[in-house]
Amino acid sequence: MKIVAAKKILKANDQIAEENRAKFNAAGVFAVNVVGSPGSGKTTLLEALFAQLKGRLRPAVIEGDIAGVIDAQRIEALGVPVVQISTQGACHLDALVVAAAADGLDYDSIDLLFIENVGNLVCTAGFDLGEHLRIVVLSTSEGDDKVVKYPAIFQGSQALFITKTDLLPHTNFDPQRITADMKRLAPDAEIFQVAALSGEGIPQAADWLAGKVKR
Amino acid sequence: MKIVAAKKILKANDQIAEENRAKFNAAGVFAVNVVGSPGSGKTTLLEALFAQLKGRLRPAVIEGDIAGVIDAQRIEALGVPVVQISTQGACHLDALVVAAAADGLDYDSIDLLFIENVGNLVCTAGFDLGEHLRIVVLSTSEGDDKVVKYPAIFQGSQALFITKTDLLPHTNFDPQRITADMKRLAPDAEIFQVAALSGEGIPQAADWLAGKVKR
Repeated sequence: MKIVAAKKILKANDQIAEENRAKFNAAGVFAVNVVGSPGSGKTTLLEALFAQLKGRLRPAVIEGDIAGVIDAQRIEALGVPVVQISTQGACHLDALVVAAAADGLDYDSIDLLFIENVGNLVCTAGFDLGEHLRIVVLSTSEGDDKVVKYPAIFQGSQALFITKTDLLPHTNFDPQRITADMKRLAPDAEIFQVAALSGEGIPQAADWLAGKVKR
Repeated sequence: MKIVAAKKILKANDQIAEENRAKFNAAGVFAVNVVGSPGSGKTTLLEALFAQLKGRLRPAVIEGDIAGVIDAQRIEALGVPVVQISTQGACHLDALVVAAAADGLDYDSIDLLFIENVGNLVCTAGFDLGEHLRIVVLSTSEGDDKVVKYPAIFQGSQALFITKTDLLPHTNFDPQRITADMKRLAPDAEIFQVAALSGEGIPQAADWLAGKVKR
């Protein structure tokens, strides 16, 4: 086997991210950057968390997508305020576009802001959006080698949500392998196993999130 | 719902891609760029195709990964020549790094070259590697909204492999929706439904690929 080395992504938006975080702090809004592969179940996870957090917290969502408004429509249908970012091809959100989107939010009616990033385990890793917490979502159907193959996104996340645990009997996914790999890269990260459609594991995750938000 | 527009990825490697294609043509090698989300089943699909094509074609693989050599080891274990590209953070292969990797191949013993791209439904869309054919892999567990949400990668592909059809009974994935969306974006694309682990649909796909390769 031969190995050829290529190039490196550069980061340059940290200052704007700090400004976003300062704005969120001043407004008493806790911001969560949600990353994961296409189809890992990010939007379905949010839907399940919103049902569980109803009456306890006032959430809002910034939706990042290459194209279309499918996810934003799902969030809007729940009565949760949403701003759609159309990246027009870009594979990740950055702090600048999040700043523009956040201008569309009514901070007075929000405590918890989810920023659902573009479905991507790579590009999203390098860009601080000004969030307080980054959640990485990995579904059981994606395979249990993903922490090893895409280390940056896992290493920089403060929580791992293993989703679609209802598919575990039908896959060769080993949650113990993923958990061990994650603990090696990010020893302090929280790890949740959830099946958002059935609600399994969602109450615990919602309680944990609620505990993060200062009222 | 508010919509904020962001930026666009630029492409700049088309000339090198043409040089790669000319080299492949001169060597009588048919090159296939395989794209798809992390965990969509790209490597497992290749393993299944190699088993089916044994004795008929002489394959080789260029493996693109952010980090690690897990996939390359799987290919090497089958006795198929493989060159690993480590992108060190980059979310896609480009023609230049493929040119470097292809220098490590023995063209005289190859007819069919798979270039397994980094797991990514976005960045990989914009970069011609010099292939003759691009296959996009989408697993049933990723959801049937992906063609609408990530149109560029599907539009520019000449074949769609719907993988993990063995999980269909356990998901809400509608193959007819994906097929209709794909036919709208890429009317001439071939569409295969496969379960690589059980081998379902693999013989037909292998025959189709073999037909593409001029001996």
